[in-house]
Amino acid sequence: MEFSSKLLENAVAEMAQLPGVGKRTALRLVLHLLKQPESQTERLVSALHSMRNEIRFCKKCHNISDVALCDICANPRRESELVCVVEDVRDVMAIESTGQFKGVYHILGGKISPIDGVGPGDLHIESLVERVSSGEVKEIIFALSSTMEGDTTNFYIYKQIEPFKIVTSTIARGISVGGELEYADEVTLGRSIINRIPFENSLKQ
Amino acid sequence: MEFSSKLLENAVAEMAQLPGVGKRTALRLVLHLLKQPESQTERLVSALHSMRNEIRFCKKCHNISDVALCDICANPRRESELVCVVEDVRDVMAIESTGQFKGVYHILGGKISPIDGVGPGDLHIESLVERVSSGEVKEIIFALSSTMEGDTTNFYIYKQIEPFKIVTSTIARGISVGGELEYADEVTLGRSIINRIPFENSLKQ
Repeated sequence: MEFSSKLLENAVAEMAQLPGVGKRTALRLVLHLLKQPESQTERLVSALHSMRNEIRFCKKCHNISDVALCDICANPRRESELVCVVEDVRDVMAIESTGQFKGVYHILGGKISPIDGVGPGDLHIESLVERVSSGEVKEIIFALSSTMEGDTTNFYIYKQIEPFKIVTSTIARGISVGGELEYADEVTLGRSIINRIPFENSLKQ
Repeated sequence: MEFSSKLLENAVAEMAQLPGVGKRTALRLVLHLLKQPESQTERLVSALHSMRNEIRFCKKCHNISDVALCDICANPRRESELVCVVEDVRDVMAIESTGQFKGVYHILGGKISPIDGVGPGDLHIESLVERVSSGEVKEIIFALSSTMEGDTTNFYIYKQIEPFKIVTSTIARGISVGGELEYADEVTLGRSIINRIPFENSLKQ
């Protein structure tokens, strides 16, 4: 693409660095901003700037926060002995929106994935082990995605916290609510048979 | 969506103002920026800021430019009597990339579209009529998209410049090169028969 302006070219090149945004989409977005009042670009620019520079991470659970201790960790009505281990902030938002979890979180910041160069040292595993060793945690729930990397990470953490003899669990895998059996994959269906639950329990939910 | 941080929420809300970017995509983009070094966000922010504040439009053709007269208008080897009327900057880039056009452009900045509240006064039509009335233009090529709005705009401009008795043409509509007849729509195929060209001419291209 040949640009008539260096300023435009720069803006498009930077925009195209974002994941899933190609050169053409970037050009469309930038030309849109040019058509809108300057104030819109100013608001976007200052929101991104202050987000990147002022955002803090909760010292306990590593969730994104505006203060040193996030709202969830600071809430006395949450059960701080029940810790749900997740990959990133979006998982916290997803679980929070269910309204089914009253414990606290621990955000790893990723999964162990040697192929992407992510080792245990790059994740917030050490601080999780510290939380467990301090005796404040009674149960850990693993809520990582059900992939090889997720399972590896679960197992690594499990091995680290095994000596402390606390309860560990993992979220249930199975047929989604409202899902039809014939469209489910074999592995999921197989697991949901192995890990079946007493019918009376399902009535209570 | 419930956000754990106001800064994050603001950044996502501003990002989601961009066309085709929903809340979820905006969150993904913003979290990506948070994972990258601060310098990347800084580069994006300053590129957008200077683009919006310093960019200029060519005083002759209204193309995006870093200087008062764009490279195309300032180029003495372009035929300044041959003016191609287009909707926006992307059309200029598309035509330039063909390497087939040696004239100059006039960017309207949109199409007449009453349904979107765009009238002739919102477009750069007056300055085009001025260019024609000054006698510097010998031929106008209409290269707007082939929609009702495009045709309306063509006709409006045509009526305005009719008194000056210059040559006007419109880019050819027809079967695309490499296209198969059976997949072409009837209107396009019909037009390509009515506007057929001498076979000898097609041999020269």
